[in-house]
Formats: sequence, structure tokens, C-alpha cells
Amino acid sequence: MTFHPQDLIRHKRDSQTLAAEEIQAFVHAVVHQEISDAQIGAFLMAVFFRGLEPPELAALTQAMRFSGETFDASPLQTFTVDKHSTGGVGDKTSLLIGPILAAAGLRHPTAHGVPGICVPMISGRSLGHTGGTLDKLETIPGFDTQLSLARFESVLRACGACLIGQTPKLVPADRLLYGLRDHTSTVESPYLITASIMSKKLAESLNALVLDVKTGSGAFLQREEDARLLARLMVETGEAAGTRTVAVLTNHNQPIGRYAGNWLEVLECVDILQGRRHALSADLIELTNILSGWMLHLAGHTETPQAGAQLADSLLADGSAYAAWLKIVAAQGGDTNIFTHPERFHRVAATTTLTAEADGFLAGIDTMQVGWAVQRLGAGRLRPGEPIDPHAGIEVHAKLGDAIASGQPLVTLHAASDALLEEPLALLRTAYRVAAEPPTLEPQVRAELLLRQSKP
Amino acid sequence: MTFHPQDLIRHKRDSQTLAAEEIQAFVHAVVHQEISDAQIGAFLMAVFFRGLEPPELAALTQAMRFSGETFDASPLQTFTVDKHSTGGVGDKTSLLIGPILAAAGLRHPTAHGVPGICVPMISGRSLGHTGGTLDKLETIPGFDTQLSLARFESVLRACGACLIGQTPKLVPADRLLYGLRDHTSTVESPYLITASIMSKKLAESLNALVLDVKTGSGAFLQREEDARLLARLMVETGEAAGTRTVAVLTNHNQPIGRYAGNWLEVLECVDILQGRRHALSADLIELTNILSGWMLHLAGHTETPQAGAQLADSLLADGSAYAAWLKIVAAQGGDTNIFTHPERFHRVAATTTLTAEADGFLAGIDTMQVGWAVQRLGAGRLRPGEPIDPHAGIEVHAKLGDAIASGQPLVTLHAASDALLEEPLALLRTAYRVAAEPPTLEPQVRAELLLRQSKP
Repeated sequence: MTFHPQDLIRHKRDSQTLAAEEIQAFVHAVVHQEISDAQIGAFLMAVFFRGLEPPELAALTQAMRFSGETFDASPLQTFTVDKHSTGGVGDKTSLLIGPILAAAGLRHPTAHGVPGICVPMISGRSLGHTGGTLDKLETIPGFDTQLSLARFESVLRACGACLIGQTPKLVPADRLLYGLRDHTSTVESPYLITASIMSKKLAESLNALVLDVKTGSGAFLQREEDARLLARLMVETGEAAGTRTVAVLTNHNQPIGRYAGNWLEVLECVDILQGRRHALSADLIELTNILSGWMLHLAGHTETPQAGAQLADSLLADGSAYAAWLKIVAAQGGDTNIFTHPERFHRVAATTTLTAEADGFLAGIDTMQVGWAVQRLGAGRLRPGEPIDPHAGIEVHAKLGDAIASGQPLVTLHAASDALLEEPLALLRTAYRVAAEPPTLEPQVRAELLLRQSKP
Repeated sequence: MTFHPQDLIRHKRDSQTLAAEEIQAFVHAVVHQEISDAQIGAFLMAVFFRGLEPPELAALTQAMRFSGETFDASPLQTFTVDKHSTGGVGDKTSLLIGPILAAAGLRHPTAHGVPGICVPMISGRSLGHTGGTLDKLETIPGFDTQLSLARFESVLRACGACLIGQTPKLVPADRLLYGLRDHTSTVESPYLITASIMSKKLAESLNALVLDVKTGSGAFLQREEDARLLARLMVETGEAAGTRTVAVLTNHNQPIGRYAGNWLEVLECVDILQGRRHALSADLIELTNILSGWMLHLAGHTETPQAGAQLADSLLADGSAYAAWLKIVAAQGGDTNIFTHPERFHRVAATTTLTAEADGFLAGIDTMQVGWAVQRLGAGRLRPGEPIDPHAGIEVHAKLGDAIASGQPLVTLHAASDALLEEPLALLRTAYRVAAEPPTLEPQVRAELLLRQSKP
């Protein structure tokens, strides 16, 4: 079949269903530069307006998934499972879920000696107002996130989990299309978001995938209907590709846990892994257990996701997740000695604290604003490739609904210099709202959407 | 103002009104390559879906008009008027209208000795299934359509009309955008069509413009509602720019006149200009007079467009339009000697005739199909820049509604070789429909849409 980009564009423009072959030819043309940027831009905008039908979305995702090298987990002969979050402020569950699942997998190795569960986590960097798993892990001296797929496999074989960045050859179609989406104001299309996320996740060769789809003031998709649509599209696409896929819809109306900022988030996780559960980390632990519970359940380790959450909690509590963490960090070249006195590694150069101006209750937090404040403190980037400050970030002292006394600290800010504190402090001041009446609190998990399709 | 292409695209995508400055910055960026092709493609597709409000369309058209050099008619101190057709099969009115208006202008020169009406016609080439004025004129040996604007002005000063092609520096934004529209399946947007046509016409520095907007089986816009929308948009845009603009909505359900094909169309016009009015040219003459009539009326030469049409007919009949034609052709380097025995110039290499297979009436013609047949005979191009056969084309022997006897010739085809006749003959056979009942005939002029706005 000769591929005519104009026809592809016109078909989508006029709501005609695209054939799988046509979509495959499009992705091939993108990767091999056989289609002009103008045509890609026009096609992306046509998709923005018309959307994609389930078979079209499945075909696009699969074509992108196989546009470059993929990770092949079959030699491990284990159950591969991963989770993906749509991004949040202080969202550090990956750092706990990897070790928890690895600990479970190490307890029940396969007949071949490989952990019974493997978590091949290919993660991203800070994006917009949200943090990135790679940036957090790289605050650990020596920790290498840029492993080859061969080393990735050997760490998984030994540890049951490995956390790396995208390799240059993995899903090249997404790298190219994402760059163009960013330039053409087509980033927000739920169809294009789904293809982008799922092509990368499916390239991990997963048996199961748990999606944390966030809604609320800190989420990219603040409206619940948008989040539900995205969740449905991602589940349909995962199931169509033969990966058991579950979406958990979560409220993200305040920073998750106690800290936001790269090293600070590692610190919070190490505290939890070492058995110290700060009250302000309770929501983080709850979310971690729920997501881990689904993963353990899908892997067949528990009868129900609830039992999985309990198992996750016990793996955290009994130190086995911490042991797995140390094993993973060491295997990826990280210096585990710093976890003995991790607080010493945090170099606070400049600090200030936002205090309450009146008595009342913590009634609302513009969490996206908080995320931007964290990034501006030095934790994030304005452009890809810029350096970040591993130590910048915030510590929260109160959660939504807490009774607040005038003058009480709400948030402490950390940055490399006093000058860097000013704008974020102003942002946080407008983001935090104390009111006379307590707010109506919503559960962190809004819905556990077992959006599985008919496939077993 | 800093221009952010992403914002422009997002605003249009979300139906926010674009500021004139934003649109000007877009056109500037297109011409100076300060916006990526992907962004242009996405913007064009967003316009395809969202359209443009009248002030946006006016701003885009004006920014394109002034994106390069423009023709300045003010030194002539005359009334400048042009016509534009949306394109048809056998549509050769420009070749008659130029001389008719020039003849009228030569009769009433200004105080400065310049013809009282000037027709600065900047025309195009064959496009799709339709012919192009430049291709027709260039069949006259020596005729030069690529004049500089300085020579353009001197021919206008002497002759009252001049027919040239777009100069490289004229409206460069349209050349760039048109190329990208062609590649991104955004050609059909009536808003983008309007900006493209009107930016080029307004760059001629016109006092008035008459638009022949075609609908029917031979038109680019076959549905009347589409043609009406385009007519309205073009009139609004012209009037907003200070040019008196009138649209004539015409039925185009059969080839116009007796011939279609480059030299054949010149031949038909020369016949008419020399006073020989073949019955099959009646529709061409009627359309020519109506359009010329509007132009003469807008130029103030007649009280009504109907009186203008009568004046046009008399200028054709008394030979003064032919005198103007000879003057224009000579001024543009053309060999006027061939008009003495023009039929000798037509080299018929291969010919065949489509005949009727049954008795009845000529009931329907798929005129676009006829247009493609003419192009395939050698009169048109598949790609810009390809050579054309000046002598290829068709002669029609019957018009819609004519009584037809079985075996009677309907169309004669001319091409450079027998091999080239085959496919066009098959196309024409499916295009011509003879039925037992006579069709309901529609007038050639569907509506004379004086869509003038409030401006005087």
C-alpha cells in the first residue's frame, strides 16, 4: 500500500475510520522522516478535534510501541507488572512500590530462580508542575538511571525491580510526536496522551499495569470527567494489547505525603522503608498500599486487591521492602551508606516558612500552584536538560481539614539561596487557604476503577 | 508583543478570538520562517475546524496581502477593477473581459491620458480539473506573462488591461501557506480559500472586484450553500479592505462555451472578438457580458449592471474589444499575426469523437469529470512546473437540454497521440448522460449577489 499522508489527514479530518495499516504507515513515516512536520502537525490537530476510535487508538499505540527497540521480559519467565501515575506533587509512590513488589517477588522466586514478580519501571523526568522519578533517584550519589536494556534485565533478574529512564531507541515515535505535540498545542488530547503513555508502558512487556489517574487541583486533568475518559482509554488500550490493566482514580487536592522536592522525597521514602511512619506521610502510605495491592493481586499473590494492600503494608513494616530497596539501589550503582544518616545529606542553604494568618481550618490548597512553587525553588526545569537542585523543595506541616492557629507554620521552603525563596513563597501564600469552617474531606481514592474488558 | 505560535494555535483551537496583531505576527513568522511547519500545519487544521470570524479573516487577508511587494495603481489615477472566478471547465471569460474593459477604458481616458478603467489581471495556472488563464495565453507565440510590476504598469497605462502571472515577491505568504495547505488536506476551508484569493486580488490595488463563484457539477464547491458561504466571506473581506466587491453565483453544470483546452479556448475567444458568434459559445458570451457589465457599472460607466452588460456586448460586436485585445497581446510580446488564420495554428495530432448511444436529450454532464478528461488529454499538469500540450482539449457539439439522436457526436477529443485519447474518452463516456426526458434547465446565473456591505 502506498501511504499518502494527505489522505490520512483528510480521513481523520472527515471522521472516516483509519485502517490499522494506514496508522502503521503513519508511525513508520514519522520515524523514517517520510512525512513532513506540517502534515504531522495537521494530523495531530485533526486527532485533537476528532479523537480516535478504540481500534484506531489501539493501532496507534501498538505502532508506536514497536517503533524502536522494546524490552523483552520473556527470558525472565516471571510476572511483569508496573504502575504509572499521571503525575502529581509529592507523588513518590514509585520509590516505595518498586521495593514492595520486589520484596514480594523475592519471597516467591520462579523455578528458574528469578523473582516471581518483576517491575520493569521505565520512568520520566520532572514535567511541568510535577516531579519525576528519575530526578529523585539521581539525588542518590552514584545511582545510574541510564542502563542498557541488557543491564536492565540483569538487575530485574537479581532484584525483581529496576528503575531506569527511557533509552534513546525505545519508542522513538513517541519522542518525535511528543516534541511536536508540545509545539502544536495538541498535548491535552486524551487520545494522544493515551498513545504516548501506553506505548511506553507496553514496550516494557507487561503482564499487568496499574494506572494512578489523578484528578483535582494538583492533577494535569483537574476535571473528573476528563480523568475518567483518560482512564477508560488507557484501560481499553492496555487490554486490547493483552496487558491486564486497572485504573485507580485518585483525588489529588494536596501535596502527597510530607515532602515535595527530589532528595526530600527520597528522604521521606527511606523514613517509611526504615519503619518510621510520620503522621504526615499517612496519605502517601495509603496510596502506595492501594496501588501495590492491585499489582500484587493481578500478579496472583493475593485473592483480592485489599489483601494485596495488607501484604504491601506488612512488607513495608517488616523491613523486607527496605532490604529490596538497598539491593536495587546498590545494583544500580547507588551509595546506600547515605541512608544510615540520610538527613545529613540534606544541605539546607536557605529556608523560610509560610505561616497561617488566621485561626481556622486548612480548607483548600491550589496544588498545581504548590507544584510550580516547588519547581521554581529549583526542583524542576524550565527546559529539558537544565540542571536541577536536588535539595530544593518543601516540607508541609498540615493537611486539608487540620485545625490551624494563627502564626502556625504551614509549609517550610528550601532553596539554594534566599533570592530563590521569594516567588515560591508568594505562590504558596495564594495557594493555601485557611477558612473558619472545616472543609468536606474527600477520600484519597475516588474510585477503584476495575475497567477491565472481557479478556481474561 | 512576543509572538508564541503555541498560544496562537491554542486560541484558535479553543475558539478564542485572535487579535489582529497576533495574526499579523503569524504571517510575519511564516514569511520569515520563525514558525515551524508543524505549527503552521496545526494552525491551518485548527482554522479548518473553527473557521475565522470576519475581523480575523480580514486581518489574515490584509497581513498576507502586504507580506511582500504589492502593485501600486495610484500613479495611474484610474479606476482599477478585476474579476476572479473560482474556476471552471472551458471558463475563458478573462480573455474576453480584459479586452472589453480595456476598450471601454480606452474610449474614456483620464485627464492624464490613461485609460479610464484599468484591469490589472494577475492570473493563475491550471489547477486540478480546471484550466488556467496563463496557460491559455502562453499558447500565443511570444506572449509573456512574467512581467515585472513596472512593465505591468506601463502596459496598463497604454492598453488599459494586462494579464500576468504572480511575481515571486507578490504575496509570498500565500505561496507558502498554499503549499502547506495542499500537503495538509486543508485546501477546502472556505476561510483559507478566501484569504488566499483575496490577498492576491487586493494586492492589485483594486477599486472594485467582481467574483464569479461557481456551483454545480464542474465547480470546486459543488454545493450551493458552500458557494454562498465562500461568496459572502470574499465580499465581506473585500469590502472590509475598502474594495467594492460583488459576487455573481453561477451554475456550472456543463463546459462553458464550445471548447476546453488551452489554445482551443483562445481560438474560441478570437472567433467571438472577430465577430463570429457560434451558437455553442452563447453561454460564454452571456457570462462574459454579465461579469463585464458589473465591472463597467462599478466603474461608473453605466447606471446599472444590465446596461453594463449591453455596453460590453456592443464593445464585443463593434470590434473595439478585438482592437484592445490585439493591442494587449502585442504589448505583452505576442504574435498577433496568428489571429488572421488562427485555425491553422491548431495542430491536431490525434482525434476521436464521443457519440450518443441512444436517442433522447442531453440530460446531465459530470463537468468535473469532463475537466479531468481535458487535463488528461494533455491540457493540464499532475505536478506544478510540468509542460502542457497547448493543443490538447475538447470541442463540445451539444449543450444540456439539446435533443440528441443516436450516433450523433457529443464531444470531439484532441491530443498529441492516440494513446492519450483512451482514458479521457472513457471518462467522458461516463460523464455524459442522455435520457428520454429533457432535463430541467437552470439559468447560467443563479443569483447576482450584490453582497455589498454598508460602505459606499
